[in-house]
Amino acid sequence: MPVGPQGAHFQPEALRTFAEAAFRAVGVPASDAAITVDNLIEANLRGVDTHGVTRVLVPYLRRIQKGMMLPVTEVSVLRERPSTALLDGHNGIGQVIASRAMQLAIQKAGVTGSAWVSVCHSNHFGAAAYYAQMAVQHDMVAMIATNGPAAVAPWGGRQPILSTNPIAFAVPAGSEPPVILDMATTVVSRGRINLFAKQNLEIPWGWALDEEGRPTNNPHAALRGTLLPMAGYKGYGLSLIVDLLSGVLSGANYGMHFAGHLAEYDRPPHNVGSLFAAVSVDSFMDVDRFKERVDVALREIKESPRAPEIDRIYAPGEIEFETRQRRLQEGIPLPAEVISDFRSLATELGIAFPDASEDGSACS
Amino acid sequence: MPVGPQGAHFQPEALRTFAEAAFRAVGVPASDAAITVDNLIEANLRGVDTHGVTRVLVPYLRRIQKGMMLPVTEVSVLRERPSTALLDGHNGIGQVIASRAMQLAIQKAGVTGSAWVSVCHSNHFGAAAYYAQMAVQHDMVAMIATNGPAAVAPWGGRQPILSTNPIAFAVPAGSEPPVILDMATTVVSRGRINLFAKQNLEIPWGWALDEEGRPTNNPHAALRGTLLPMAGYKGYGLSLIVDLLSGVLSGANYGMHFAGHLAEYDRPPHNVGSLFAAVSVDSFMDVDRFKERVDVALREIKESPRAPEIDRIYAPGEIEFETRQRRLQEGIPLPAEVISDFRSLATELGIAFPDASEDGSACS
Repeated sequence: MPVGPQGAHFQPEALRTFAEAAFRAVGVPASDAAITVDNLIEANLRGVDTHGVTRVLVPYLRRIQKGMMLPVTEVSVLRERPSTALLDGHNGIGQVIASRAMQLAIQKAGVTGSAWVSVCHSNHFGAAAYYAQMAVQHDMVAMIATNGPAAVAPWGGRQPILSTNPIAFAVPAGSEPPVILDMATTVVSRGRINLFAKQNLEIPWGWALDEEGRPTNNPHAALRGTLLPMAGYKGYGLSLIVDLLSGVLSGANYGMHFAGHLAEYDRPPHNVGSLFAAVSVDSFMDVDRFKERVDVALREIKESPRAPEIDRIYAPGEIEFETRQRRLQEGIPLPAEVISDFRSLATELGIAFPDASEDGSACS
Repeated sequence: MPVGPQGAHFQPEALRTFAEAAFRAVGVPASDAAITVDNLIEANLRGVDTHGVTRVLVPYLRRIQKGMMLPVTEVSVLRERPSTALLDGHNGIGQVIASRAMQLAIQKAGVTGSAWVSVCHSNHFGAAAYYAQMAVQHDMVAMIATNGPAAVAPWGGRQPILSTNPIAFAVPAGSEPPVILDMATTVVSRGRINLFAKQNLEIPWGWALDEEGRPTNNPHAALRGTLLPMAGYKGYGLSLIVDLLSGVLSGANYGMHFAGHLAEYDRPPHNVGSLFAAVSVDSFMDVDRFKERVDVALREIKESPRAPEIDRIYAPGEIEFETRQRRLQEGIPLPAEVISDFRSLATELGIAFPDASEDGSACS
């Protein structure tokens, strides 16, 4: 709940209004602004602030202002078969392209049973969990993956060639929250190491390598070096698969070929590749029976004996689900420097920035 | 190359003949014996002896003899749509069921672009890499997953509820070996810990928990406890997704509901669930161009600067590919106790057991 000195909570709807206005102010059509901001606000609500307005709103706007990402998103179909499609996002907004791709996967899976839609010339699309949940709402299983600028060396290497290459899965449940696994294939994000660097704290061994490819517990050396994949060579393998399937197969960029990171506003278009797979549950089992089985499977896990000092066993996505319930009440916390950035942005764009919610619990 | 005291190398074709005869002797039709043994010999050739004749031949035969797995495999289609199918393996041999399922996925992906085939009432199917390669031979990408008897506690728990739940991906390449990632979602296998226990050596921290759910470096305590998932909560999440998609969605067993492990010969049928997804490359890109792009991506990684003391950077599946080349020449190494078991088995079944290859390099 607390956000620290000078930070404050904001009503989700107030932040939504602000962020949509910001996108419209740089030329994004209202409906696309709504899609994009919904993805960001949902990430904030789920506690994934790295993918919320907190971190990505300003980079998105700046890249549009610099002409490196287009405000108006046109999506065209390059190849299409009954259960596949390849879409070209023409350097539009990642969220708009990804939502279109997931909708098409859901529609095709509704007809044939399963579908796999890839996109090229896309951009950072926010949290994959968002698109996964679109499938869940249609009683479908989802798998989503995307690539991006390099941050991770291959196993045994020292040059960043792979991105944090996230992969996400979603499985509908009945009365339990849907199972949503949305994970980077690294041990931690660069952002996490940044937090240690700011406080000059040592990072745990196993998070990163220095420039020479040696293990390090120095966050500054880690930031000059590379992140480590999760689970050693297994995570490297999974990360490479993500890159091959989302980047190489779609015709997008891959590996070391991205011109810059999200926050490097004037680097050329990223040409991100992503994939969106959907599988309709009722192709295999009646939906009600499936949801019942998932609920039982989850409860067997959650009610199983716990290890010492563990209060509770969670299913993937459950913490985020509960954070969402809480933040709908308490509001979305923003750190002081983000509030300050947003105030300047509002002035620059000639839009309103909302007041913080009075006591952090006044969200209507 | 060396197999240690009294171990020896055998020509792959000699072991194939022996193993096929063994399956036929317990009532398996010749064509199914050939499919099953091909999967086992390929695992041995690729150096994955845990999934070769070395470890699984005897359990398979015993389970058939005890009536716990059927010698004659009938596969029926329970549900079918253009890009999905649910197959019932009726407790036949896992390899025969899995091969049928992968063939159907390949056939459907050839028609619609992508496909997802699930099976229930199956058994241990050997190495998933085998089925992944079937797809590669058709210029398709594959994703395969399966569940099995519990060995891993959920994150925060101490009761084994999840299996080592492997997931495999395959991506065709051009002149590079195909990328084959076939991994258990645990840090290591039980078999690996067994090796430490036999020699009374400490295992590294992070591999397993003891019965009380506490971290342990004692292999005996680990064997009474549970394996740890790879990558902590991320591996737990991925393992659960594998179980939900291969077990719960197919109507097969899942979680803690398996009656016993592979080597517990007289435990009831396992009712394993698995999934087989195939995606045709040419739905997204001309196959030649794709293979070229994959080759370039792999070489960029393999030729990138190495970390200290690293001789070479490998792509997933490359070590196994090279082991296969070598073992085709040198033969398949079997430890002394396995040779002894196979000799007894040959006597019992009235079949011939081959001589070891003379000098380990005489395979024709």
